[in-house]
Amino acid sequence: MPSIVECVPNFSEGRRREVIDAIANAIASIEGVRVLDVESDADHNRSVITLVGPRETIAEAVFRGIAEAAERINLDEQRGEHPRIGATDVVPFVPVRGVTMEDCVALARSLGERVGRELGIPVYLYEAAATRPDRVNLADIRRGEYEGLKAEIETNPDRVPDFGPARLTPAGATVIGARPFLIAYNVYLTTDKVEVAKAVAKAVRHSSGGLRYVKALGLLVGGQAQVSMNLTDFHKTPVHRAVEMVRQEAARYGVAVARSELVGMIPQQALVDAAIWYLQLDGFKPELVLENRLYEGV
Amino acid sequence: MPSIVECVPNFSEGRRREVIDAIANAIASIEGVRVLDVESDADHNRSVITLVGPRETIAEAVFRGIAEAAERINLDEQRGEHPRIGATDVVPFVPVRGVTMEDCVALARSLGERVGRELGIPVYLYEAAATRPDRVNLADIRRGEYEGLKAEIETNPDRVPDFGPARLTPAGATVIGARPFLIAYNVYLTTDKVEVAKAVAKAVRHSSGGLRYVKALGLLVGGQAQVSMNLTDFHKTPVHRAVEMVRQEAARYGVAVARSELVGMIPQQALVDAAIWYLQLDGFKPELVLENRLYEGV
Repeated sequence: MPSIVECVPNFSEGRRREVIDAIANAIASIEGVRVLDVESDADHNRSVITLVGPRETIAEAVFRGIAEAAERINLDEQRGEHPRIGATDVVPFVPVRGVTMEDCVALARSLGERVGRELGIPVYLYEAAATRPDRVNLADIRRGEYEGLKAEIETNPDRVPDFGPARLTPAGATVIGARPFLIAYNVYLTTDKVEVAKAVAKAVRHSSGGLRYVKALGLLVGGQAQVSMNLTDFHKTPVHRAVEMVRQEAARYGVAVARSELVGMIPQQALVDAAIWYLQLDGFKPELVLENRLYEGV
Repeated sequence: MPSIVECVPNFSEGRRREVIDAIANAIASIEGVRVLDVESDADHNRSVITLVGPRETIAEAVFRGIAEAAERINLDEQRGEHPRIGATDVVPFVPVRGVTMEDCVALARSLGERVGRELGIPVYLYEAAATRPDRVNLADIRRGEYEGLKAEIETNPDRVPDFGPARLTPAGATVIGARPFLIAYNVYLTTDKVEVAKAVAKAVRHSSGGLRYVKALGLLVGGQAQVSMNLTDFHKTPVHRAVEMVRQEAARYGVAVARSELVGMIPQQALVDAAIWYLQLDGFKPELVLENRLYEGV
């Protein structure tokens, strides 16, 4: 079965359609790589491209997108609501199938080295690819945005990039790294009391004492209480555990789970993990799935 | 995404390794078709080959296996414990992904016509491909086995085949049809009392009043009560419904589900269906699964 890596580069252009198209086309020009989604926001002046491809070629596709963006986006002129430090602002690699987080870290480092060397763009590694604790979070690296970095990069040793020169062109700097797949997941409760959703969200989310890889908010959507969650590492905090915790906390208020919904995509593995857990299917192996056998050795 | 059809032809040879290999190799010679399993039983003198492939080419692969078996297996000499009427005894097509039962019925009819015409072998259509109610069940068609059919086929109008001549060569006759995927599934209970497993099996299985597409037995396996099930149409009686009914019936005796296990393979869809049901994931669409997007349009 071919490996699958997802990559979600963010570009600092959300208005000029021809620029966005040129970047997406440069990415899609690589065999085996597919652009799944292009989301542009004019106010943010930013586009988020979702692509998938095998480990062997995905970095080449992203490199072409970065090169295209560097030619067409001038950070000295670009303005938008969303913070940014580069024409290609941030590039996370995400393991989906047949690749590890370490593989994605290696992809990030190798791409970062090439972007620094061939395009002369300063590159900072972040998240799982970070080389220093103060570079794990994107917000820390992006502090002061393009303008702030431009003023500091040549003189402040803390801002020396991981790859490329310690000086900025109008293409700015790029943050490259690796992180787990993010699942956006909403659970609707059988009540119109938003307080119940808020209380459940507070119990479930990491920040207030809940599950390690869950962010959650209580909302009222279409007259129904909703616990809106981001699952930031479904291997470690799986979907079923989050849903069952929502169920248990809601039951405390005499409220049940009405239904749930995905916002965006989910890896097959997250659904299979849930099926195995609920069915108590001990000893499950991927080769028991017929489709997986079909791609063996391919 | 390429379509997947499974086919599980049974051949009346379980002893001569070179014959079994020749049949399997003939099948595997078709591009895109994969032989997943070859199970031979010397006492039964029978081999069961599991193959998968796209709708476009799987019938060609099976045809080559049937032709090879017809050349190498002589029913006038073949003896074994398992009932049989042909060198290729029975050929079920099974829809797995991107194909319907109707597609598999069409495959069965088209292959049957070709086997009758090109190889001169009488073909009977069974299960979903049957042309008459008394030919739905394999056992009815195979009544009297090869010897019984040989004595009757030229004179008894009830035994006129659907395709091919109404006379037998030493290759016998072949039964071809279409059926749903069969999932073999065991649930272990937290007790060593086989009576509990037997009572649960009786409640769950179709034959004694239970679920329409479930066959079940209560057994004692390794000192643990086990409900052993065959799910004969997981689209209509899904895995989760069978497991939850086992759970409920076992609870009546103060017994819980300890774990479950697959015997053989399961289609991805059956696990995804379970995840959706337990997570209450209304509005789920296959394109929300990242992997499915990757193969779009392929």
